[in-house]
Amino acid sequence: MRATAKAHTNIALIKYWGKRNEELILPTNSSLSVTLDGFYTETTVHFKEDLKRDIFTLNKEEITNIAYDRVTNYLDLFRNYANKQGVFAEVHSINKVPTAAGFASSASGFAALAAASAKALQLHLTDEELSRFTRQGSGSACRSIYGGFVEWEKGQRDDGMDSFAIQIAPQDHWDIRVAAVVLTAKEKDVSSRIGMKRTVDTSVFYDGWLESLPKDLQEIKEGIMACDFEKVGAIAEANCLKMHATTLGAYPPFTYWQDTTMTVMQTVQQLRKNNIPAYFTIDAGPNVKVLYLPEDEQRVLDKLQNTEGVSEVIVSKVGNGISYV
Amino acid sequence: MRATAKAHTNIALIKYWGKRNEELILPTNSSLSVTLDGFYTETTVHFKEDLKRDIFTLNKEEITNIAYDRVTNYLDLFRNYANKQGVFAEVHSINKVPTAAGFASSASGFAALAAASAKALQLHLTDEELSRFTRQGSGSACRSIYGGFVEWEKGQRDDGMDSFAIQIAPQDHWDIRVAAVVLTAKEKDVSSRIGMKRTVDTSVFYDGWLESLPKDLQEIKEGIMACDFEKVGAIAEANCLKMHATTLGAYPPFTYWQDTTMTVMQTVQQLRKNNIPAYFTIDAGPNVKVLYLPEDEQRVLDKLQNTEGVSEVIVSKVGNGISYV
Repeated sequence: MRATAKAHTNIALIKYWGKRNEELILPTNSSLSVTLDGFYTETTVHFKEDLKRDIFTLNKEEITNIAYDRVTNYLDLFRNYANKQGVFAEVHSINKVPTAAGFASSASGFAALAAASAKALQLHLTDEELSRFTRQGSGSACRSIYGGFVEWEKGQRDDGMDSFAIQIAPQDHWDIRVAAVVLTAKEKDVSSRIGMKRTVDTSVFYDGWLESLPKDLQEIKEGIMACDFEKVGAIAEANCLKMHATTLGAYPPFTYWQDTTMTVMQTVQQLRKNNIPAYFTIDAGPNVKVLYLPEDEQRVLDKLQNTEGVSEVIVSKVGNGISYV
Repeated sequence: MRATAKAHTNIALIKYWGKRNEELILPTNSSLSVTLDGFYTETTVHFKEDLKRDIFTLNKEEITNIAYDRVTNYLDLFRNYANKQGVFAEVHSINKVPTAAGFASSASGFAALAAASAKALQLHLTDEELSRFTRQGSGSACRSIYGGFVEWEKGQRDDGMDSFAIQIAPQDHWDIRVAAVVLTAKEKDVSSRIGMKRTVDTSVFYDGWLESLPKDLQEIKEGIMACDFEKVGAIAEANCLKMHATTLGAYPPFTYWQDTTMTVMQTVQQLRKNNIPAYFTIDAGPNVKVLYLPEDEQRVLDKLQNTEGVSEVIVSKVGNGISYV
């Protein structure tokens, strides 16, 4: 009844941007990510017959706010599946995802929580089953089950049984790097959940976004299989620009970018003008992630660290999937 | 055979962004602008029987490059219409449009050239006819025929006979102000002509852009008639954001924005948070134009002039249409 799992976060190269079912967390489009070894969550779940309620600590501090509710509601999925209603758990998470870096800690968080819960309850889930469970905690978390390059297939069914992630290529397939560029902290005006929903509901560009994705997905998978960095980078960067353009067509319009976001985008384009292949991607926040090849690491980091408005650059390699400790 | 005309530039609140016919300059969508009194071109056209070729001076310097070809080709339209083939002209233009401000001097330039040419040849054109002629020099110029608030109706016909501008409200209808925010000069990577064409040809958002325009146009006209500044400003700003979003969905994607563009956008949003109604609009370049009301002028200018990356702020009122000197 006790297990510990470790999961890494991931960064989407083809963005997940919109739900077709809010409750089951079913996406409007398939997405594709790379798992990152630099950032992870390690979680121990211990189901105990004598507990009166769930207990949740994050980085050794007890959590009692809305995050607690989200965890305890999520554990119900596993309790129901295992017929263990009323059996509460102690959940202890250590989060090595710097939230300032704009990585959604929910991805590694729910992947580790799902894996530890399933193991503690001896559910013997397949990866596919585990990914489906994880998806219901946080959409992008379902991709963090695997290492390397991962696709989340949106699926067609209303019950979500065909909406889960699969591995496209393992961690050792290709050594690319991701630099998380942390900007001097500013507040986010619109959360990713709210922004996603407003975009789906109101953006005049949402149909154009969706229609453009099958081609992006097919081509980036070809690029990954061929280890064609320029192809993968160009598609990822264009996909990110399209995702962010959809927010400008929402009503009221909004953007996650700040002026310093644009400064880093310009720096990356400058690197390319100097023949260093580097590409950016940006999630629902102001921070920028930069993709590059190992041999260019020093030049890329020098340039990023010397860009105005950058407070920190954190480097990551391609990471592996769930592991049990 | 000699006439002098003065025309003001205009700034679009609903953008002209794409041609359905490159040669006749027929737009894919109707647009709406305000004519600005701060920026104008004054042009004298003198047709002379004894000239061997056209002569064109701009701000007292003789022009012999591609701008000369554009002017002389444009004069052919009038020569053909007036049956004066082979009669060349001296054209002297004084341009009071700071090109650094990112105002297309082609709008006031071709409006003044058209008006002076037509008068010199005693063509006695209606405003509608003059606007159609002007459109063939530079699309947005057809709106500079009139003062105040002007709509360019895209028209349906292949020959462009129904594609011309009309006045929505005259200059004295409403006293709003436009501040042209000039950024520390950087080069434009993609010209507006090229950018427009790439967007029409490749942007996954172009259909969404077009479909959203009839509502924008109808509502902004209601706002102008009612002198509802917040309504007009919000629609103009959202329309500008949509136009710029289409470039992010083009292939290859591009943007006219720079980091300092975004800094000014943030400044304007900050003004609104401080209950000063101010809205931005941006053409196919990095500079920003800010709409505000006369009573807020000092506070708006103080804030803009103290924004990082701003080199100059030039203020304009609503201007009048073509005048003859």
